Amino acid sequence: MSIKLFSKIKVDLGTRSYPISIGNGLLHDKNYLLKSFQNRQVVLVTNDIVGPLHSKKMTSFFKNNNIEYMQIVLPDGEKNKSFTILITIFDEMLTKRINRDAVLVALGGGVIGDMAGFAAACFQRGIDFVQIPTTLLSQVDSSVGGKTAVNHELGKNMIGAFYQPKEVIIDIETLETLPNREFHSGLAEIIKYGCIVDSDFFIWIEKNIHHLLDRSSDTLAHAIKKSCEIKAKVVELDEKENGKRALLNFGHTFGHALENGYGYGHWLHGEAVGCGIVMASKLSVQLGLISKSDESRVTRLIELAGLPTVWPDWPKEKYFKLMSNDKKIKNKTIYYVVLEKIGQAKLLPVNEEIVTEALF
Amino acid sequence: MSIKLFSKIKVDLGTRSYPISIGNGLLHDKNYLLKSFQNRQVVLVTNDIVGPLHSKKMTSFFKNNNIEYMQIVLPDGEKNKSFTILITIFDEMLTKRINRDAVLVALGGGVIGDMAGFAAACFQRGIDFVQIPTTLLSQVDSSVGGKTAVNHELGKNMIGAFYQPKEVIIDIETLETLPNREFHSGLAEIIKYGCIVDSDFFIWIEKNIHHLLDRSSDTLAHAIKKSCEIKAKVVELDEKENGKRALLNFGHTFGHALENGYGYGHWLHGEAVGCGIVMASKLSVQLGLISKSDESRVTRLIELAGLPTVWPDWPKEKYFKLMSNDKKIKNKTIYYVVLEKIGQAKLLPVNEEIVTEALF
Repeated sequence: MSIKLFSKIKVDLGTRSYPISIGNGLLHDKNYLLKSFQNRQVVLVTNDIVGPLHSKKMTSFFKNNNIEYMQIVLPDGEKNKSFTILITIFDEMLTKRINRDAVLVALGGGVIGDMAGFAAACFQRGIDFVQIPTTLLSQVDSSVGGKTAVNHELGKNMIGAFYQPKEVIIDIETLETLPNREFHSGLAEIIKYGCIVDSDFFIWIEKNIHHLLDRSSDTLAHAIKKSCEIKAKVVELDEKENGKRALLNFGHTFGHALENGYGYGHWLHGEAVGCGIVMASKLSVQLGLISKSDESRVTRLIELAGLPTVWPDWPKEKYFKLMSNDKKIKNKTIYYVVLEKIGQAKLLPVNEEIVTEALF
Repeated sequence: MSIKLFSKIKVDLGTRSYPISIGNGLLHDKNYLLKSFQNRQVVLVTNDIVGPLHSKKMTSFFKNNNIEYMQIVLPDGEKNKSFTILITIFDEMLTKRINRDAVLVALGGGVIGDMAGFAAACFQRGIDFVQIPTTLLSQVDSSVGGKTAVNHELGKNMIGAFYQPKEVIIDIETLETLPNREFHSGLAEIIKYGCIVDSDFFIWIEKNIHHLLDRSSDTLAHAIKKSCEIKAKVVELDEKENGKRALLNFGHTFGHALENGYGYGHWLHGEAVGCGIVMASKLSVQLGLISKSDESRVTRLIELAGLPTVWPDWPKEKYFKLMSNDKKIKNKTIYYVVLEKIGQAKLLPVNEEIVTEALF
């Protein structure tokens, strides 16, 4: 097969800087992989869905090049992003006497990346880790920026760390086997970037949504590159989310409430975020920030991307209770990311009456 | 009572810099405490031994100054530095809807500091925390430098984070209620600093060991200040333990094996480290690095400090198995911190035969 490296992006964080490589067939590229793994002890963490599809490329490479490795295969799904599973990772690593010089590789989607990343952050107080995201969503979002976490029954991503990978390897080839629902889910985050910081990119997505849905390699490579560049820039400005980084949570306050309210797994993360983007846009209209027609463009794009635009008819009290554990709460008021226009967002405290009027 | 601030030390780590205040009666000093806690939501973490002795000073201060706080009281002891207990901290904090702007206060010894610090490092990916160490050992060692962790059944401190506090408040008054065994345990780490980096300080300890044992305030204040200064300097040079910081583990490779082999709680950490210092000194003699008479000075000081100098007669295989999970292992060889002279140490791989000949 032909191996192609489309682009290399640097996330500039001083001593914690790292490259993101975007290409096709990178997991078959022995010379490329050797640079990262030669003479390292490797812990490959994957799940029971991704493992059978992609881990053999890695394990064959390790075997053929005499690289010592162990593989940990976790059960798939957001509900398994838990302390219980995290502890099994530590158990396996300690039983195998993995040491501090080892590198942990997260091969899978956002759940694997978040949980394996958090394991790497905590194991012996931190070992190197490499993200190899295999879903569109993790390629454009969760694998970049160093957010790692597990869920708690009282809230998503409540326990975690800011811990940057040493490298992110995005192989678009892995998307070939991605189910449609998962693929659409990834589009939600791509649309998000257009909404919050780049109106030209938003327009590009509007024009190219059908090519994206066809999974055209070149179109995908551009969308992923653009998304990673935007995310990298925001993370560089605000690694620990004290300011601008919170804008990346556009659609997520509502999205997390939907995920949590339905129970993890009913809606995929990107589906919940897609619907959350619609909700946040309608809230922006209610606040007089954007026009109804801009909101319609956002909603239409979410719909074209195959994502839900209608949220469940739960009592408003349920929504507010679900959102009351959000990390963007100050002085008991929930802060929402809202649009000032397409391509520009801000964080704003909004009281319950206005949110209710807009949405519930 | 009279309140006295003896000294203030800065740990210089760029954006993660913080002060260590050493004084007498600081926990009664309203103005001092207000600077740290005014307008903050506070999570006070302590244990069922320290809590009844000292937490009332803090909670009275919070109540009198309208500071919102919650208190989490954990069971005492190294065996409780576990994932199970860590999770109960998260449960309580999330149930009380503690947010990211809160500050977590660790009031207690090393176990509380390590575990509460790790909780602060992970809660919502990191919140501020303040160390108020109440044992001599935690005042001179574990509260400074940002090492946090919990134990795993396969090894001590295996899961944790490097996470610096915002401030360390050392109130020598808290030592008045410290049991003798605990107090002696703290002396082990003070002696360690003399051994590894400062022969003048070693000589000062030799001269003042009886004043220290009498818990004279001024002598204690000097020993604590000196210890914190040495530790701060080492941490500044090597925050993440890639080099020089490992020297602080003098006596700890053996010490951890003793603690683990006996089962946590049989020997106190400082007792195990004290005995470990004797073992590491004897190993240094075996390696031809220091003289027998220097080793005798070290052993005598450990003995005068009321610490064990004789290790259990376990088979050597048991020792090596216990040490095989040490974090200072490279290419399957254990690295030991050994003395080149009193006041100077280095990290060295030593094979099992030499260790056996020296000790087992």
